[in-house]
Amino acid sequence: MAVLQGMLGGSKIQGQGTAHKRKKSLSEWAKFQTVSWRVDSQKDYDEHGSLMEKEESFLLKARHELGTWLIPGLVGALTATSGSIIEKAVEFFGDMRFGYCPNKFGSTRAECPDNGWVNWEQGYLYFILVSTTLATVSATLTWGFAPMARGSGIPEIKTILGGFVMPEVLEANTLVVKIIGLSLSVAAGMSCGKEGPLVHIACCWSNVISKLRPRYAKNEAKRRELLSCACASGVAVAFGAPLGGVLFSLEEASTVFPNRTMIRAFFASSVAAVTLSWWNPTGSGKLTMFEAHYDSPPKLYEYLIFLLLGIAGGCIGSVFIHYNIIVSKGRAPGTRFRKYCHIVLEVLLISALTAVTSYHLLYTRVLSNVTIRALFVSCEEAASTGLNPHTYMLDLCDGADTVTSNELIQSLLIAGFLRYVQMIFTFGTGAPAGLFIPALYTGACLGKVTGILCGRLFAHFGWQVAVHSGIYAMIGAAAVLGGVCRVTISLVVIMFELTGGLQLIVPFMVACLTAKWVGDFFTLGIYDYCILVRKYPFLHEPDDALYNKTAGDLMDESIECMHPDCGKAGQLLNFLEDAKYGGYPITETGGRHSLIGYIHRDQVRDFLHKRLDEPGVSHHSRAAFVKYLPNQVPPSEDCVDLSHLVDVAVVRAVAETPAAQIHCMFRQLGIKLILIINKEQLVGIITKKSFITFMNEHHSGEAHAREGYLQQSLLHV
Amino acid sequence: MAVLQGMLGGSKIQGQGTAHKRKKSLSEWAKFQTVSWRVDSQKDYDEHGSLMEKEESFLLKARHELGTWLIPGLVGALTATSGSIIEKAVEFFGDMRFGYCPNKFGSTRAECPDNGWVNWEQGYLYFILVSTTLATVSATLTWGFAPMARGSGIPEIKTILGGFVMPEVLEANTLVVKIIGLSLSVAAGMSCGKEGPLVHIACCWSNVISKLRPRYAKNEAKRRELLSCACASGVAVAFGAPLGGVLFSLEEASTVFPNRTMIRAFFASSVAAVTLSWWNPTGSGKLTMFEAHYDSPPKLYEYLIFLLLGIAGGCIGSVFIHYNIIVSKGRAPGTRFRKYCHIVLEVLLISALTAVTSYHLLYTRVLSNVTIRALFVSCEEAASTGLNPHTYMLDLCDGADTVTSNELIQSLLIAGFLRYVQMIFTFGTGAPAGLFIPALYTGACLGKVTGILCGRLFAHFGWQVAVHSGIYAMIGAAAVLGGVCRVTISLVVIMFELTGGLQLIVPFMVACLTAKWVGDFFTLGIYDYCILVRKYPFLHEPDDALYNKTAGDLMDESIECMHPDCGKAGQLLNFLEDAKYGGYPITETGGRHSLIGYIHRDQVRDFLHKRLDEPGVSHHSRAAFVKYLPNQVPPSEDCVDLSHLVDVAVVRAVAETPAAQIHCMFRQLGIKLILIINKEQLVGIITKKSFITFMNEHHSGEAHAREGYLQQSLLHV
Repeated sequence: MAVLQGMLGGSKIQGQGTAHKRKKSLSEWAKFQTVSWRVDSQKDYDEHGSLMEKEESFLLKARHELGTWLIPGLVGALTATSGSIIEKAVEFFGDMRFGYCPNKFGSTRAECPDNGWVNWEQGYLYFILVSTTLATVSATLTWGFAPMARGSGIPEIKTILGGFVMPEVLEANTLVVKIIGLSLSVAAGMSCGKEGPLVHIACCWSNVISKLRPRYAKNEAKRRELLSCACASGVAVAFGAPLGGVLFSLEEASTVFPNRTMIRAFFASSVAAVTLSWWNPTGSGKLTMFEAHYDSPPKLYEYLIFLLLGIAGGCIGSVFIHYNIIVSKGRAPGTRFRKYCHIVLEVLLISALTAVTSYHLLYTRVLSNVTIRALFVSCEEAASTGLNPHTYMLDLCDGADTVTSNELIQSLLIAGFLRYVQMIFTFGTGAPAGLFIPALYTGACLGKVTGILCGRLFAHFGWQVAVHSGIYAMIGAAAVLGGVCRVTISLVVIMFELTGGLQLIVPFMVACLTAKWVGDFFTLGIYDYCILVRKYPFLHEPDDALYNKTAGDLMDESIECMHPDCGKAGQLLNFLEDAKYGGYPITETGGRHSLIGYIHRDQVRDFLHKRLDEPGVSHHSRAAFVKYLPNQVPPSEDCVDLSHLVDVAVVRAVAETPAAQIHCMFRQLGIKLILIINKEQLVGIITKKSFITFMNEHHSGEAHAREGYLQQSLLHV
Repeated sequence: MAVLQGMLGGSKIQGQGTAHKRKKSLSEWAKFQTVSWRVDSQKDYDEHGSLMEKEESFLLKARHELGTWLIPGLVGALTATSGSIIEKAVEFFGDMRFGYCPNKFGSTRAECPDNGWVNWEQGYLYFILVSTTLATVSATLTWGFAPMARGSGIPEIKTILGGFVMPEVLEANTLVVKIIGLSLSVAAGMSCGKEGPLVHIACCWSNVISKLRPRYAKNEAKRRELLSCACASGVAVAFGAPLGGVLFSLEEASTVFPNRTMIRAFFASSVAAVTLSWWNPTGSGKLTMFEAHYDSPPKLYEYLIFLLLGIAGGCIGSVFIHYNIIVSKGRAPGTRFRKYCHIVLEVLLISALTAVTSYHLLYTRVLSNVTIRALFVSCEEAASTGLNPHTYMLDLCDGADTVTSNELIQSLLIAGFLRYVQMIFTFGTGAPAGLFIPALYTGACLGKVTGILCGRLFAHFGWQVAVHSGIYAMIGAAAVLGGVCRVTISLVVIMFELTGGLQLIVPFMVACLTAKWVGDFFTLGIYDYCILVRKYPFLHEPDDALYNKTAGDLMDESIECMHPDCGKAGQLLNFLEDAKYGGYPITETGGRHSLIGYIHRDQVRDFLHKRLDEPGVSHHSRAAFVKYLPNQVPPSEDCVDLSHLVDVAVVRAVAETPAAQIHCMFRQLGIKLILIINKEQLVGIITKKSFITFMNEHHSGEAHAREGYLQQSLLHV
């Protein structure tokens, strides 16, 4: 290496400090390439944007503009279609657990003509058998064809939108396996939902389609704009919540979300929603999944109970995260458990146990969303609109009154707890599985019980107030989901679009905010923990704790640079083919390392390949990164001029810059690295990855110092 | 000046270029000071944030954290209270135009005991008289005590949140006058609403309260975080739309809106909403202003009509903006019209004309929001819930059927057009007045007429479909408002919370997006135009057109610098007292202008004042910006060391940096200026103001080149 460097005119700046350790920590992220919005936007402008400046025809410009809307719209339509297919498949396979339709093969219980549905004779056995088979097939497909299709996919999407390239996550095979596998694992009655994975499916569609258009195929930053839109349409389809989708993309998923992207995300959601209402998978023609009407706004004192539900939600969410992370670490690749238990076997066991435990109670036997719907709807409404009290309302009602018996409370508590424990093991296993629905389920059970108990309590004290336990179920559901995911505003909008509870916006707000506060006191959100545990690079929002560090404290002082006069073209090419970094700073020859610019490895390599194929240029031609080398005559004819590839506008900062500012620059400017200069001299480098490493170390150190037992134990499990 | 500079060791870098012209264009913004988030955040950390690092007691930290929630919450509650007072006052004064209650003074028509309300005998005359008086009082108060209370206040808030300090806009006098004036001008029946101004009121509350706490009083950036929250609570109160408020703050008002602020905005809105429902000004206990239930989602072919309404809304909005800007320019201070017509007289004339023209039609005689409500509600619902067909439904219904007569269509068209023309003159006049309500009014009339005509058309062709003209009225209202303000997602959420039309999210989306597209084709949004016309500095979202310019093209090459060894303390102080810039770069002595850092005028001045009061330091003491001057012995005892005031981390960039990147740095990093360096040498400076000047010139040039007649004519009226 040293030889090659010498030949290329390169050199190494070696400072004091802990740089070596940092470089090591970097290597674990070698497979994730960083995206530079700065460079990609410039590239996009050079290739396509300049069109808008010129006196081109109106039609051409309109076509160009239309292109930026077409893909989001198409992705919205395709996601809605995928969602409808999954909905139908889940219904069909889910019913298959209970029986079959002899008259017409392939129809669900509701579609079976002449009420001809036949239940299996040995119900329990078949229930377990079919459930386990469905889940195992799902896991096998995932394991065999698309390992990245497992889980919800949201941590991966967050990382990708944060500006890193992750292989395989968004490819066509993942898309196909996720659609099929998701249908099967949800239909298997596992404690999982299809909502998070639908976001993943939407992003896969976006990626697959955008690769067909040259403008997006080679531009990672532009493709991320489309992914942000896809994210929105995914949630729009999952919950029938187009607004919630846009907000979810904004609040939770995207790092860069300018108004330009927001409008397109909005468009994608609209198209998704219209397409969904056209497919009409729920049969009601409406988008709301769990529509429930409550006309009277809650009383002010009820807010106290909502606050308590919020606190409970935060705690339940944190405990879930705590144990889920323990389970996740226990079954990570390379652990003892994984050696003895194959991932498909694990899914088989989990699904078998889920089926065995779920059959006995009506509320866990049916699919989770049926139970949630029944818990939300008021009995009054059910009675007046003639909903089936057994199959639709699951015996929760006695005419127009809510059943308030001890047996019901007991059943609901058991059901909620069961789904909760199942969810701890199911989330993160080897099949496509989301956690929104089980979190809502747990919360809905808790809320309903709280509502019933409050009603009894008020009656005991002789207060003449009507307590709508369905409202409590909704608030409880929102609180637990908030405690798990730590989203606030988008969750309120989703809940609100999901249930149609217009009078409940403020109660939802109270519950979600409280859940987030309480939860944040104990642990990070589940997605952030997943990112940490799976060792993805992700840069969080800036916090205040970064003002006591400066760029100088955390920069890498050991830098490999190149000199403008870098020797022979062939040697440079060889060097670049094996180069371990994505780019190199160019510094002037001499002791001072005066900074000229930065080169991107791939750009130079591709250009050299092209040039070396041309006549008159050989491997022995000189290559230079400046037009005229100092103190020399203009270079000869066959010199390969690489000066236009030098990124002279690379972002610089001085060592005194506070780390908070560096954070802001990485996150807001969408850059890949910052060169640290002292006057004209290059003294250090901070890459986005090394900065994230620093942040993670910093925070785990912080957590040691000031947080309680729980967080510490979590970080060191 | 040249002498002083010499004495201070300062120098002037004078490059070639058009720098002189730019400096001139800067001077028009001299009264707006730029806020630096970077510097202020650091300051906040130094003074308060470091608390969180230390091993302080939990209680102290909790108190510190609580402080960041307290003010938003308080502002929410106060805004809701102000809103309720205004609501009541409008009702009272509005009724006074028609009559009085002899039994009980000070009560509205609805409150008057024993149906004792007496209408004025000469109704028309009194109507004009009372209306004109109310409006004139409002204008007089505004003119006399708080000129900045006029109009909606949203362009000013946008500018302030964009990072500029504007005097008087958010002071206590503005607050008081705005509350009183708004009640009067709305009650006067002018074509204006109280919604936009409520945002201004919320921001005033926030500013007034935050000045009481030292953490916020001296920190402009921190105060802006609170303003973003206040903005949200303003909209929450105005429309009873807490979610819409947060989104409005995000989409339209705020420039910097991290998740941290979003959650607090969310909290402020929640508090505002709960307080509002506690005050219960509408008497229904619900937040929705114009609640209307439509259970059946629109048919797919109806979307085509919504699209057409969106197009119409965009056009109507653009035409409004076009004429309103002409009117605004015609009555700007210094014009001929303004010389002959005092601003109070202008309001008097407008209100008199409004009253004269509005009395004849029922729909314009009553307050605008009453008409809008009647247009939205379906007759079926009105009949079933027993709403008064005359006072509540304004004779729009015939039993459970909508009236579809030609007379009604004619009346509605006239009413809509009348309000529209009135709005053109009213918006921007000398009384507090918003434009949301008149825009909704115009759109609702248009939509209702469209709905009625569609119903007739379908009936004509014999299609058996029920057309809900109320839905069309809502969509039309959203479209026109979208065409005027060019907000999308927040408008959808507001409309949706305003009307409770859960099934209408997608139709609202379609109409708002279309209105924005169409409108953007012709003109900017009204608030952006106001910012342009009133000559406020504001940095818009980046667009793609900035990649063909570099920092070098637009930097100021004429820079006044200071040298580290700046002579006597007294002289430096004198210089700084009269200094025309907010800060100066420090460059090394010698020809190379090697950059050391940047000083902020006020900081150095305040420090010098303090030091000069201390013993042992006199006006003749030396002052230096470096600890040890090169080639000199350590400075003597009485030397004033200013080195800690030098901001060495000031942001630098090279001249090759694309303007798009510079834009991104100003907007995202929240900085005030960027120093342009060539190696170590300072070669230029770009301030946020000079950049905005460049952007404005650039865009008006662009517009010349590529847009049609309308935009050109608008920019050059």
